[in-house]
Order: sequence, then C-alpha cells, then structure tokens
Amino acid sequence: MIKIAILGYGIVGSGVAEVIRMNQDALKKQTKTGIDIKKILDLREFPEDPFADRLTKNADEIMDDPEISVVVETIGGAKIAFDLTKRALAAGKHVVTSNKELVATHGPELMDLAVSNQVSYLFEASVGGGIPIIRPLHKCLAANVILEISGILNGTTNYILTRMEHAGIDFETALKEAQAHGYAEQNPTADVAGIDACRKIAILGSIATGEYIDSRQIHTEGITDVTTADMAYARALHAKVKLLGSFKRQDGKQYNLIVAPMLVPSNQPLTAADDVFNAIQVTGNALGTAMFYGRGAGKLPTASAVVADVIECAMHLGKQPHMALWEDHGNQNILAHDEAAVSALIRLSPAIDQNSVEKLFSNVGIEWLEPVMPEEIACIVGQNSDQALTEGQLSQRLAQLGESVISRMRIYTKS
Amino acid sequence: MIKIAILGYGIVGSGVAEVIRMNQDALKKQTKTGIDIKKILDLREFPEDPFADRLTKNADEIMDDPEISVVVETIGGAKIAFDLTKRALAAGKHVVTSNKELVATHGPELMDLAVSNQVSYLFEASVGGGIPIIRPLHKCLAANVILEISGILNGTTNYILTRMEHAGIDFETALKEAQAHGYAEQNPTADVAGIDACRKIAILGSIATGEYIDSRQIHTEGITDVTTADMAYARALHAKVKLLGSFKRQDGKQYNLIVAPMLVPSNQPLTAADDVFNAIQVTGNALGTAMFYGRGAGKLPTASAVVADVIECAMHLGKQPHMALWEDHGNQNILAHDEAAVSALIRLSPAIDQNSVEKLFSNVGIEWLEPVMPEEIACIVGQNSDQALTEGQLSQRLAQLGESVISRMRIYTKS
Repeated sequence: MIKIAILGYGIVGSGVAEVIRMNQDALKKQTKTGIDIKKILDLREFPEDPFADRLTKNADEIMDDPEISVVVETIGGAKIAFDLTKRALAAGKHVVTSNKELVATHGPELMDLAVSNQVSYLFEASVGGGIPIIRPLHKCLAANVILEISGILNGTTNYILTRMEHAGIDFETALKEAQAHGYAEQNPTADVAGIDACRKIAILGSIATGEYIDSRQIHTEGITDVTTADMAYARALHAKVKLLGSFKRQDGKQYNLIVAPMLVPSNQPLTAADDVFNAIQVTGNALGTAMFYGRGAGKLPTASAVVADVIECAMHLGKQPHMALWEDHGNQNILAHDEAAVSALIRLSPAIDQNSVEKLFSNVGIEWLEPVMPEEIACIVGQNSDQALTEGQLSQRLAQLGESVISRMRIYTKS
Repeated sequence: MIKIAILGYGIVGSGVAEVIRMNQDALKKQTKTGIDIKKILDLREFPEDPFADRLTKNADEIMDDPEISVVVETIGGAKIAFDLTKRALAAGKHVVTSNKELVATHGPELMDLAVSNQVSYLFEASVGGGIPIIRPLHKCLAANVILEISGILNGTTNYILTRMEHAGIDFETALKEAQAHGYAEQNPTADVAGIDACRKIAILGSIATGEYIDSRQIHTEGITDVTTADMAYARALHAKVKLLGSFKRQDGKQYNLIVAPMLVPSNQPLTAADDVFNAIQVTGNALGTAMFYGRGAGKLPTASAVVADVIECAMHLGKQPHMALWEDHGNQNILAHDEAAVSALIRLSPAIDQNSVEKLFSNVGIEWLEPVMPEEIACIVGQNSDQALTEGQLSQRLAQLGESVISRMRIYTKS
C-alpha cells in the first residue's frame, strides 16, 4: 500500500480523496498495492467527512512519518504551499501538485530540490485540469522541437466570452452569471486579468523548452475591456474572441509569449472550445499540430490528474523518474513585447482622416472593413504584407492617432 | 550514445531516421547522450540515402549486436515483423513500433515476452500517428475508470467522407482523389473496410481495460456503401457522417465495441476533425470527456511518436518501465453485437405502409423526418425511449420490412 498525505482539503484536495475512494479497485490494479490516504492537513474541521479520522492540523505528523512516500499539495498560493513543499521534498517525499502559481513562481528551485533528494515534483494538474497536457508535451512530443503552443487555458474567461457571444450580454453581466454558476470566484481578478492563463502558458513554455519562463515577464491582458461590439466584429470576421495564451519559438534564443484576448478564425479547431472548456494546440516540427481539449477545471477532473501523478510516483518509488527540469537563464529568454509581430483589428472614430491611417500602416498591410458598428470605421493591420508590424510600432502608431482610436484587438495567427 | 536499429526502411522507418537527424540537438538534451542509428534492416538498396552505410540485409547483425539496445520495428504486417520483434525482445532489446496490426494481433504475447526479458514493447505510434494517445490513456488517465473511447481513427476514410460531404462527389470519385493525393493506398481495403480503425479501437480498448480485446471479434463496417444521399441526410440532421471506432464500458464484464460509419451531431467536438485529421474522445469517470486531435498519419508525425518511445526506452535502460500489460481472457470480453444498443436513421421506399413501420418500432421510439431525398421516406428509431433497441432487434425488424429498406445508418450517441 502506497501511503500518501494531502495538504489542503479544499475543492481539489477533497476531490483527490474522492477519486482515490471511488476508483480504489482500478488504482489497486494500476499500482499493484493500492493507495492509502494516511493523513490530511487542514486547519478546518470536517467532522462528517469519510476521511475525518485522517485529518490533522500538524504538518510534522506528515513530514516526520517515514511511511508517507507521496505528498499531494493542493493548498494553492506560493507561501504556505511553498514552505510545505520544500519540507516534503527535503524529507524525501515525492510531491504532486495542482498549484500553478507555485510551479510558475518557484518551479526551478523545487525541481532542483526534488532531484537532490531523489524524488519527483509532478504537476500534471496545474494546466488543463484533467486534460493530459504536461506529460504528453514532456514525453510524447519529446522527439519534436516545439514551435508553438496556443491555448484557451482558463475556463472562467472562456465561459464569460462564450456567454457574451451567444447571449449578447456585456462583460459584467456574464461575469455575474459565471459567479452564480460557481465558474468564477467572488474575487475573479486572477482569472479575468489573465494571470491564471499566464502562469499556465509559462509552465507549458518551460516544458517545451526545458528553460524556466517567468510568467511575471509575459505581456498579459485580461478580458475586462472586451465589449459586445468586439463580439459583433468577431461575427463579421467569422471569428471568435478567445483569451489565448501563446508561446512561439522565434529564430534565435528568445521566445515570444503573450496572453491576451484575440480574434481566432472560426476554422481553427481551437474555437471548438466554448463555455468552460479548454483547448491547447501544440505544433512540433515533426508532429505538425495536435490539439488537446476538455474541461480545464473542476473538482474531479483536476483530482484525476493529481492522482495519475501519484500513481506515477508510486511506480517509481526508490527510482528517479524522468521528470521535467528547467534551466533558469535569468529572464533573458522572453522576446521584448515591443518586438513581437502582431496583426490587429482597429476600431476608429469615423471623423478620422482615412488617408492618414492608410499612410501609417501601408507598409505592413491595411484593409478596411465593411461597416459593422454604427458611427465607427474599422480596419485590419499587419496582415498580408511581407513586412511585419511589431507591437511597439502598433502602440506608437495608435498613439499618433490619439483619441480617434476606439479600441484594438489582436488577431491570432498560427505560426 | 543510445544505439538503435530500424527494421524496415519504408515511409515510417525513413521518417524515424529523418526525425533523429533533424532533431539531434533536442534529442541529445532529452537523453543526455543522444541517439545513434547503428543499423537499418531492409532488403532494398538506398544508395543515395544519408544512412546508406548503416543498411543491412542481415537481421543477425542487429540481433547479435549487444551495443544495440533499442529496435524500431516499422516493417508492418504480422509475419516477418512478428518474428523479428520476438527475436529482438528475446535478445533483451527494447522494441518500439508503429505496427497496429502486430500489436492488435499478438500484443499480449509480445508484452509477456518483453516483461520476461526485462525490456519494453512500446507502440505510441500505432494509434493516432503523432497524436499522443496511448501514453496519455495509460498514464495520465490512470486514475479514471474509462467509460468510453470514440474516435475518428483513420485519416484515409475521413478524407473520403469529407470530400463526399464538401464536394458532393460519390465514394468512388473521392477514393480516386484520395489515391491521387497519396492519402489512400492502391489497395485501400484495410482503410475503407474499417479494418485499420478496428485494430486501433481494439488497442485503445485494451489500454483502457488492461484486458486484451481481439480486433477480429469487433463488428466492423466500412464506408464503401456510404452515398451522397447519406450526406444529404447528415446535413438535414445537422450531423456529419464519420467512420467511428467506439469502445463503451457496459454494466457487467463485457465491453461494447463497434466500427461503423455513423451520423455524428455537428455539436460534438469530434466533428472538428475533417480531411485526414483524427480525433479521439475519451470519457473517464473522474475526468469527464477529453479529446485528442491531430494528423493521424504521415511520415514525420508518426515517426515523432516512434522516437518519443525510443527516448522513453533510453531513459529506462536497465530499468523496467511502466508499460501496458494486457490480460488475455480469451475473447469473452466483447458484448455480442446483437445485444448492443443502437439508434439509426432508416430510409424506406415511400410505398411502404408507415403504420406497420411505426408499430414495429413504437416501443423503442420512432420519429419521421421531413422529406430529404425524392421518392423515399425516412425515420429515426431507437432514440427518445426508455427502452433500448438492440442491433439484433434492428436487423430482425429491417428484415421484416424487406426490400422497402433503402439503407440504415447508425447515429452516434455519447454514453
């Protein structure tokens, strides 16, 4: 019997216990011996819980117990979870987590600590909930140079954008709906500001390159400024507005990463992901493009990914598993945002002199749209030209146009 | 340096060599030492090939070479490939293959032989080409009881069906187009008769259950009888005609498997896969549903999956990797086809007495369609009723209707 402990008995932590209880026969078959939850750390009381007898408020009972070989960290955040993860790894215990913030913030340090203690630090559940993506990227696509990863990585924002598109409601109304359904938290900032998606694309990029990509260095825009007018333009352009996290390998040593709402052409398979679903598209130089699709969050899906990692640890007890390791090059590996290529939809006041706009963008391609919204004109820039438009140039030129600019939204282009 | 040999230097075998050459830096990073192709077995001559100096016609040079630790089998078929795989495993070499016929036919024997020689037999490339599916199913979804796997598993037939749908051409014309593009072989039987898809769903079902599912016991229908009229019905029903391989877990000990063209509602994400693309949908009791999408065939995509398995072997040299093992229960694990539940579109001569048809199907639900094709009527049976219609009952009742039946096509229902 593999003895494990769960740190943090919230949604995912209690889901882990539920999956282990629900599928104990299957887990016994997989691991030969089965998985036993010996301790659960939480400061709260759960008197009615089937695992009430395993609960403790004292981490020492876990860290000092040599029988416990795998620790599941489902506390979240990068403070207590960080300390306890370090303690567990230092105590020679494998650690499995769904905590994207911790992996994105302290991944390299924790991986080093794991290696020096001959244990694993696994985090399949940190991206895509139950959708297998970390291990496929790390193992199945190992023979590829990964050229691009683009994905709808956050279910909350995808639900909001889908509702705005389908029901014609505005952001605030859709957010309230999402909160009423339990799809958005009362403080939804990490989701709607794109921070969650940003951590996830940083983790995926790090896996793809073997280099630590610091999420705090990635240009990130959320969806709070997306309007019903944007949805109208999306329809007119046969596209959908999606919050994308994107990693693109450039020539040279730097990677191009961004998180922002973008217009994604409807013929892209990514757009199959509506509501709370996630979809992640990976392009390798041998593979071509593959896509992974499913529920990116939720108690049992996420828990099932955690438990899969526990099984992986259990199969490698006493052996060093083939886990991800990220070299830390000190934040020099992300292309400066201003230098990244971009194409965008620009909405303008009809009072503007169209000739001056054309002159500004003629070298990078400009195409005027048929009217979509009253009292504005709109064009697409940065497409259909040999010369690239950079983010820096776009910002600068929009600044020149001043208050005539109503908004700009990026258009997703597959590399 | 990991020394490997390739058996069979056809499309996939030469693709493996190309991927290893093209991505040698990445592979060196992954494996620490790099991968070196020491020998290639083929009876043909390849004088201009960059690996011409490694070619041999004598398998002994590979089997007797203790330096070669991994053998890639890309011969295909279940005869020579079977013999050489057994020899390689018996010689203590890991074997990696893309050969679905061999895995589907002799999987359990080869896995047993691998285990008793403390080596691996890996076959990620046998299903879905470069799309990661075998390892995600085996490892990432290990904490789930897999309830269903349904997929578009054959790119050739999906191309033909897509062309029939989009261009309004008939099966023969679309097949010729597929052959002209190199998407179909000159003898296309294994693809168009559903045999290839059948082997793949058998492999996926075996992975999902840990029990050998014999593809030869699965009810299999191909796409040769699909007509442009079927496409018209699909459009009318907001569905697409797709050749599906499907595995469903039933109550009890038997599994429900089938390969057949089916009407798949367009709101199912599976229908995002057109042309030569594959899509495989997996439902687990904790995960819910995830989908894997990409090119299911092709030289480099398939080769990249083979090389990923080679890396896996390389990381586990001298150690027993966690590979799939299938118990062989002697063909007792597949539900008799006649007992499987079904719903279907039935096209009938307008001369038939509709009342008699309604009477036949009233207990399982019957719904008449608005006219789609001239000089015929059509209904859907087996939906919207508590009582299931079985395949056996459907065949029997259609036989009673005799020559009035123009055709029937199954409707895919997610379990």
